[in-house]
Amino acid sequence: MTRIIVATAQPESTRRWRDVMQAALPEFELVEWQPGQTGSGAKYAVVWGPPAEVFQTETGLEAIFNLGAGVDAILGLPGLPDIPIYRLEDAGMAAQMAEYVIHYLSRYSRGFDEYARRQLHSAWSPKQGIVYSRWPVGVMGLGQLGTYVARAVANLGYPVAGWARSPREEEGVEIFHGDAQFKAFLGRTRVLVNLLPLTDQTRGIINRELLQSLLPDAVVINIARGAHVVDEDLLAALDSGKLMAAVLDVFNQEPLPADHPYWLHPKVKMTPHVAAVTLEADAVDQISRRIRLLEEGKPASGLVRRDTGY
Amino acid sequence: MTRIIVATAQPESTRRWRDVMQAALPEFELVEWQPGQTGSGAKYAVVWGPPAEVFQTETGLEAIFNLGAGVDAILGLPGLPDIPIYRLEDAGMAAQMAEYVIHYLSRYSRGFDEYARRQLHSAWSPKQGIVYSRWPVGVMGLGQLGTYVARAVANLGYPVAGWARSPREEEGVEIFHGDAQFKAFLGRTRVLVNLLPLTDQTRGIINRELLQSLLPDAVVINIARGAHVVDEDLLAALDSGKLMAAVLDVFNQEPLPADHPYWLHPKVKMTPHVAAVTLEADAVDQISRRIRLLEEGKPASGLVRRDTGY
Repeated sequence: MTRIIVATAQPESTRRWRDVMQAALPEFELVEWQPGQTGSGAKYAVVWGPPAEVFQTETGLEAIFNLGAGVDAILGLPGLPDIPIYRLEDAGMAAQMAEYVIHYLSRYSRGFDEYARRQLHSAWSPKQGIVYSRWPVGVMGLGQLGTYVARAVANLGYPVAGWARSPREEEGVEIFHGDAQFKAFLGRTRVLVNLLPLTDQTRGIINRELLQSLLPDAVVINIARGAHVVDEDLLAALDSGKLMAAVLDVFNQEPLPADHPYWLHPKVKMTPHVAAVTLEADAVDQISRRIRLLEEGKPASGLVRRDTGY
Repeated sequence: MTRIIVATAQPESTRRWRDVMQAALPEFELVEWQPGQTGSGAKYAVVWGPPAEVFQTETGLEAIFNLGAGVDAILGLPGLPDIPIYRLEDAGMAAQMAEYVIHYLSRYSRGFDEYARRQLHSAWSPKQGIVYSRWPVGVMGLGQLGTYVARAVANLGYPVAGWARSPREEEGVEIFHGDAQFKAFLGRTRVLVNLLPLTDQTRGIINRELLQSLLPDAVVINIARGAHVVDEDLLAALDSGKLMAAVLDVFNQEPLPADHPYWLHPKVKMTPHVAAVTLEADAVDQISRRIRLLEEGKPASGLVRRDTGY
């Protein structure tokens, strides 16, 4: 029976994924990876933040399935074999991210945070209705997730632009592309939503220069990767008054150390990397469908390009 | 020149609406209503919470245009002439209400309020991903606003049902209708969103019996009218633990008196009747288009039925 090995950073998580994948793929034998074990002879690996040693013992692998959309962590592993890697394509993550962005955007644009403060003083004081033209939203990265988020926010009435590597059409979303249009994209953006993949080109992209190019009273929402941000530059922009707020779900170091200035900064809202959590059922569906396609010699979607890193 | 009179509860608001309506309807003479003035001979009235005396002096009116979707206030005015009343049909309100519901729903379902508390303690502790089946949302009232909100929430992945007077089809939304199915609708609902019109049939509908019929740890979001709620019953359901929270934008008395128990109740989130504010440009477009249609002898949409009250 063909074997599939499941490897994550935590034993309980490995067990859970093994069990649900086994239920979905009864014609395969699903195996848990454990530190120090000898090779299982598995043909496929299902992984989430796996230790590098998995690939030292599992030498017969023909494909790897990543239990998430971002593959920067796995691509950085030493000794990663040169075999196809597939990532999740959505798995309910796009809708979760849209909900996240709408929630935090409206804290500022609709004044919901302000109303919470006024409630503490029993103060009935309605603000003027929203003027959408004052809240242009810009989404960096127009993969499946970024495109979905951009559309969802545009549907609410906000002017939305997206920045991508190459030109395209997206109904209701103004598209900027490439390095040449980056400055123009930032210059019309007040609420910047980061959904870029983490690559050598995008590491540290949220830096002083980018932040200074945004509209006044800007808000940065980072739901991609912590390493997109130069933390000192973001803190400086918050403290200088250039930024109204930063909403951060991801960090250069996770868990974020308890003494990091983000925690208690009055302009920072933080969540612990939960903007989009892989939904089990969707993930199992995608991976089991792809394994069956590969077994039939057919191509499967979600293949990661090593040259671009996503 | 045919006259149109603008009457609201506040002089600045009357002036503003007069000016923007005049710009959109240059072939008419727009007049501000002021207390104590004699009749202007206007053919049309554009109103928002007008005093009853408007209709004692303006006796030549042929139609009334309400600057909002809810017409319960105007229908209750003594001496209201028996002429057509038109209400706004959306005017950007549906999208604002969808944003409002998504914002407050996710405070609970996604735990965003909980993360705000944990941030104060520099505590990195991600919760499990959302299990949508634990958060069935029910929308009471499936007019334009309710239907839009139901669809927007369903698109995010939540199981959504709607309750309407009569049966219909709505993609992605389970429909319950009439008195016979009301109990079943409530029994599958954890997050109840009220978007009913206020009529004799719906006044006080959010009462003890309704609240007891909801799923445990329920959340009530009222963005329709304060008079839909029996306040003592809602407070009792919050205090008994039946409800997890109430999100209230509208109240039996507005502004809500500073000593009302809602203000400082730990389970109540309040906003001062701002879930959807009439957007000026949309409202002006709708009303000016309708006035021109009526002048041409053609029917216009948005006509209020006196028998149903909406």
